[in-house]
Amino acid sequence: MSELVEKQIDKLVEEVGYAEVSRLFKTLKGGKRLRARLVEKIAPDESSAPLLGAIIELVHAASLLHDDVIDDASLRRGVASVNATEGSKQAIMLGDILYSKGFSALVSFDKAIAQSIADAVTALSIGEMMDVKMAESFNSDETKYLEMLYLKTASLIEASARSAALLSGKDPQRYALYGKNLGLAFQIIDDILDIVSDEETLGKPAMNDFVEGKCTLPYIYLHEALSGEDKERLESLHAKEVTAEQSAWLKAKMTEHKTVERSYLLARRLTEEAMAEVSDEPGLIAILETMMKREY
Amino acid sequence: MSELVEKQIDKLVEEVGYAEVSRLFKTLKGGKRLRARLVEKIAPDESSAPLLGAIIELVHAASLLHDDVIDDASLRRGVASVNATEGSKQAIMLGDILYSKGFSALVSFDKAIAQSIADAVTALSIGEMMDVKMAESFNSDETKYLEMLYLKTASLIEASARSAALLSGKDPQRYALYGKNLGLAFQIIDDILDIVSDEETLGKPAMNDFVEGKCTLPYIYLHEALSGEDKERLESLHAKEVTAEQSAWLKAKMTEHKTVERSYLLARRLTEEAMAEVSDEPGLIAILETMMKREY
Repeated sequence: MSELVEKQIDKLVEEVGYAEVSRLFKTLKGGKRLRARLVEKIAPDESSAPLLGAIIELVHAASLLHDDVIDDASLRRGVASVNATEGSKQAIMLGDILYSKGFSALVSFDKAIAQSIADAVTALSIGEMMDVKMAESFNSDETKYLEMLYLKTASLIEASARSAALLSGKDPQRYALYGKNLGLAFQIIDDILDIVSDEETLGKPAMNDFVEGKCTLPYIYLHEALSGEDKERLESLHAKEVTAEQSAWLKAKMTEHKTVERSYLLARRLTEEAMAEVSDEPGLIAILETMMKREY
Repeated sequence: MSELVEKQIDKLVEEVGYAEVSRLFKTLKGGKRLRARLVEKIAPDESSAPLLGAIIELVHAASLLHDDVIDDASLRRGVASVNATEGSKQAIMLGDILYSKGFSALVSFDKAIAQSIADAVTALSIGEMMDVKMAESFNSDETKYLEMLYLKTASLIEASARSAALLSGKDPQRYALYGKNLGLAFQIIDDILDIVSDEETLGKPAMNDFVEGKCTLPYIYLHEALSGEDKERLESLHAKEVTAEQSAWLKAKMTEHKTVERSYLLARRLTEEAMAEVSDEPGLIAILETMMKREY
């Protein structure tokens, strides 16, 4: 966590000029600030890098506030979500304020930078709608899933890396690919952790994705591997609360068909592709390595 | 309604590239497109005026989608609101997509224009939060009410006029003042109509503002005029369903103390100030006159 970024975030929130917003914002846990860290690592010599990172983190916080309302999530980063403690309406309004404040502050940057971030926010909003839509039935289409994942999660990480490269005169395409793959791999690992971790580690209920109807890669691969009654059983469990017995069955089948491993290998491949793009930047390699090692 | 603006709106929505968004957007009623009309009237010779107007209308539509979720409104422009027919979640997500698409498209304009619109969106989000907060108890502070009104409604109309002036090389300050006063007067008239009109004309329940806890000017002036038991009675009715008898009492007291007239006179004064700024533009004068004559 960079002090410079935190200062800029606080400054942006103060500039909103409404005490209620400052109070609500203080209840949020900051998280790892992955996007701002990327910006600072890619553009270490640019004096406006902390501000750009802060803007992206505000926009990211806004998207999480709205996601939690849409998913009825009561936990975020191990603490009660704003919609749980202050109500959905407050969460929606705070999200709108952070989004728009982020955009206001973005205008001071070059057009290519502002465009990249603004487009990513459109992408992530579309991704969120796709995610909800796809959860209505069992989605067994890997390509469709990865497209949604790109829009919902990877696009803003990609834009963070691209815009930092633009800020510091580096090759935007190389860094964009790094960011995109980092984002995809990050979310695939997140999806795996939802299956293999316990509630305490996650800060939210385990196997929650599938209960919410979200068929992440290990479920998609399992669907591909199963046939007959087993396939039907998998489909019948979609979007319902799972018993301990059902959860154990899912995990056993995933182990049998190595679907978590297969998901992990895809994340690994994406990570290696990303590493190849930034082989001369140990700081960026380290981010990938830390991310891949999360509690797995 | 300008065909050029409608075309640009459709184009922006199509560019989002997600059929679900196009479908949902088509369920919205377009309304009067006041903001886009302003832009076209102020910058009639600028080829990018319809796009700028379309962007502002998109952003305005997004704010209404979220407002209706926050106010639990089931009607908008006389038809069922998106939150009522498709659920709050869809309304939140569609709003986020329209906001961000609007910002994405805004980046192609000059920084001063983009800044003006982006700042106005921050202002209107803050205004919405203030509106909700102020409805928690009887607000009798006229200044505070007008500040909220400026943020929530007038700021985007002001920014529409200012940005159109910037686009066409006219004096931004003059047009901004015109837009600000138009916006304030517009909302004051809206607040009056909520009291004096019937449900059919309004497209939503009458006297709904006070039931929702919103003390508009006629209530604030009434609070100022009343004393003793009458004042207590007024306060006791705040934010509750009103019976026919209570509604009749409120209206009789407002008539007695001319609080609707006093509100109307403020709108009239703001309108005249706006007219003085644009005395050489009959099209803009006509917008003010039509607005003041709405069903009153």
